[in-house]
Amino acid sequence: MEKPSKAITPKTEDFSQWYQDVVRKADLMDYAPIKGFMVIKPYAYRMWEFIQAELDRRFRETGHQNAYFPLLIPAGLLQQEAAHVEGFSPEVAWVTRGGSEDLAEPLAIRPTSETIIGAMYAKWIQSYRDLPVLINQWANVVRWEKATRPFLRTTEFLWQEGHTVHRTAEEALAETRQQLAIYQETLEGLLAIPVVAGVKSAGERFAGAVETYTLEALMSDGRALQAATSHFLGQNFARAFSIQFLDEDGTLKYGWTTSWGVSTRLIGGLIMVHGDDRGLRLPPKVAPIQVVVVPIARGHERDAVLEYAHKVVAAAQPLARVHLDDRPEWTPGYKFNDWEMRGVPVRFEVGPRDREQGTVVVARRDTGTKTTWAWTEVAHALPALLESVQQELYRQAREFLEAHSYAVTTVAEMAALGYRGFFWANWCGDEACADRLKQETGITIRCLPLDARPEPGLGCLMCGGPASHRAVLARAY
Amino acid sequence: MEKPSKAITPKTEDFSQWYQDVVRKADLMDYAPIKGFMVIKPYAYRMWEFIQAELDRRFRETGHQNAYFPLLIPAGLLQQEAAHVEGFSPEVAWVTRGGSEDLAEPLAIRPTSETIIGAMYAKWIQSYRDLPVLINQWANVVRWEKATRPFLRTTEFLWQEGHTVHRTAEEALAETRQQLAIYQETLEGLLAIPVVAGVKSAGERFAGAVETYTLEALMSDGRALQAATSHFLGQNFARAFSIQFLDEDGTLKYGWTTSWGVSTRLIGGLIMVHGDDRGLRLPPKVAPIQVVVVPIARGHERDAVLEYAHKVVAAAQPLARVHLDDRPEWTPGYKFNDWEMRGVPVRFEVGPRDREQGTVVVARRDTGTKTTWAWTEVAHALPALLESVQQELYRQAREFLEAHSYAVTTVAEMAALGYRGFFWANWCGDEACADRLKQETGITIRCLPLDARPEPGLGCLMCGGPASHRAVLARAY
Repeated sequence: MEKPSKAITPKTEDFSQWYQDVVRKADLMDYAPIKGFMVIKPYAYRMWEFIQAELDRRFRETGHQNAYFPLLIPAGLLQQEAAHVEGFSPEVAWVTRGGSEDLAEPLAIRPTSETIIGAMYAKWIQSYRDLPVLINQWANVVRWEKATRPFLRTTEFLWQEGHTVHRTAEEALAETRQQLAIYQETLEGLLAIPVVAGVKSAGERFAGAVETYTLEALMSDGRALQAATSHFLGQNFARAFSIQFLDEDGTLKYGWTTSWGVSTRLIGGLIMVHGDDRGLRLPPKVAPIQVVVVPIARGHERDAVLEYAHKVVAAAQPLARVHLDDRPEWTPGYKFNDWEMRGVPVRFEVGPRDREQGTVVVARRDTGTKTTWAWTEVAHALPALLESVQQELYRQAREFLEAHSYAVTTVAEMAALGYRGFFWANWCGDEACADRLKQETGITIRCLPLDARPEPGLGCLMCGGPASHRAVLARAY
Repeated sequence: MEKPSKAITPKTEDFSQWYQDVVRKADLMDYAPIKGFMVIKPYAYRMWEFIQAELDRRFRETGHQNAYFPLLIPAGLLQQEAAHVEGFSPEVAWVTRGGSEDLAEPLAIRPTSETIIGAMYAKWIQSYRDLPVLINQWANVVRWEKATRPFLRTTEFLWQEGHTVHRTAEEALAETRQQLAIYQETLEGLLAIPVVAGVKSAGERFAGAVETYTLEALMSDGRALQAATSHFLGQNFARAFSIQFLDEDGTLKYGWTTSWGVSTRLIGGLIMVHGDDRGLRLPPKVAPIQVVVVPIARGHERDAVLEYAHKVVAAAQPLARVHLDDRPEWTPGYKFNDWEMRGVPVRFEVGPRDREQGTVVVARRDTGTKTTWAWTEVAHALPALLESVQQELYRQAREFLEAHSYAVTTVAEMAALGYRGFFWANWCGDEACADRLKQETGITIRCLPLDARPEPGLGCLMCGGPASHRAVLARAY
């Protein structure tokens, strides 16, 4: 429907404009008639379905079940956990009328569902035998954002939110970490996005959490994207909502809860990590079309080449998601640009000479290289090629992340690097230092990487005082 | 979590109370802290996932793609199609505040998405080459209902809504009918729910439709359930939203649109068609657990029987969704009742004698019959047994529907039958007769069955005037 053209702003010239050009010209989204809302078009929605399928399988394998909780949350319920309401109430959309009547109590559209789910869990859980409760929900949420950006920050977005209750703190912490590991494997394995795993500093924690685990990815403009979070909520929500159980020893105890989620924002990450000046580059595992076949022929040769193209498609079809672009109204050159814009990992070109010789010209989107295969090779060579593209995109992204990770001891070093990249630095643990850094440079503490220790002999990056943490700093989306 | 007990109200005593007992005791749902909203618990949500998977596969096979459109619709947009706004505005929930600001224009939570999708399609479609547009959305919708009932009528529900645009009326009509056929095959094949397919009379049509196709199922209390609808919208929405395309002949034309949907209400239908006084009865294809294995042993025999039960589970596992109920705290009798309540199609009982003889007692939920198998038989006999249960539930439901379908010529005949069943009658086509029937008896025209003709020589059931239609009448949910 949307006619892509190759005219997009180069990444280096204006990254933000490049991003907006790609999301539109690769036919991923459109702006809705309400500010801050977007339509997720089929091409991008398919990527979300691949992400869903992979996560859903892993959640199920680890004992989780899906359920569905209400969209609307009474104001009183939302306000029950003090830190939580403070964090979320500025972003809430309120329903005040239903049908022809004004509501006695306004209803919030869920910005996240800890409160409504907590209220239900309190009803459902009586005994230690009811634990653990391991439930996930696929849902839409609304947060009234002032500045929005397609996929990265939209007023409504799609996500999954897992909510679990455990008998002990240890079990809840193990769950929190297990889900983070599932996210990391999915990001790296499916989306080819390398990440740094860590915990949030207190100032960056989820509202109401005791500990927030996070995966931070590095976009190709050198800014960070928080890609997934997994929260250990301690007993905060259990106390606020009276989630109590009678333990085996006969005493009444509060449960230990967790929550964890990823959203359609991952599609934004996919674009910004892998895209280039020709458009999207999709890892094959998440590509709606893995191979596009473009016949190249005119006049009297057209039919014969098209017939040959169908033969090539038939060979590839059982192994990959293949699309034949037989649109008569476009030139091959236009089609090449079009499918490169959409990030299709592999292109097969078949012309009259290929038909005669029984060959296929194979072009890789990731490296731009071309080779020629006998068409009989397709069946065994294609899976390896797709795997190779998947690996290469991950390798490039990992190389970029490592090349843009810097150990720093002063703010000036970060300034000299244009504040672009992951900056590893010592931190004293004082939020005042973090606040000052943010105000002066726009840089935030993305995470305290797991197992990282402060560099010996160095003080806090900001105040020079004794360092208790090693932190990864960056400007973030 | 919810402890089921066998104490439910008998169907014949109070059907409505029976239904409420079953949805709670089979652990399908819970009431949310807001009136009219419910939580779909994992056991029922899994059924919804099976319905989704089947429909999604069929939609994709027929060329449809999924996308996602915004939850909120500006008031002005909702009001653009006159008949549509009249039908839906009494049921709309309104967002009037976002964050800390009052909104200039209230936003409706979508009761259905024709309007917002129509506005987007108008932007996307320019040429006949852009057609057909075949998009489906899985989403939540909100309708501010006065009287609600779990699954059947809730303020928020989950559904899919397909929205398509075509070049000609014929193509749009063919799409409308194709989608109805997909629904019918899914209802009958997956859910074992027989239906009558037809079109709605003008008074019962979707607001804004030219023709509404419907599937009507008969619940076991003799009331009808509208289970699926597929709407031919003509050019009504295309005109209201300016969905126009330049045709091959160089003239600008309005598109022809359709919409079609089914919702979580189907789970209500599943309960009411197949359930009995012991609880749910689930067709195997939609059963989260198809076989439950219950070990029966005490004391010193316990470990040996449990080991044997694991062997039986291992044999069945590759062929079915199997669950081993090894909870030590409950008796076998309690477990039998529990799993019967939850409608598990097949129960395997294994006791000390079974272990010695290498047998399994096999109990069917649909017929209540018990047989004994050698455990080595499980691998080949189980698939056929599950298929047999699936067929038997369909056969019983079809038999019930036929036994409760009556050709009638007077209202008195329906009264004598307690207004329970599908009543086939002649109708003159005048809405005044339909209105009078509804007011006097609560009976509505469920549909005008496809290919049905008025019974010759008989007048309209209500006015005795010339009959133009054969109609199926019933009291409906």
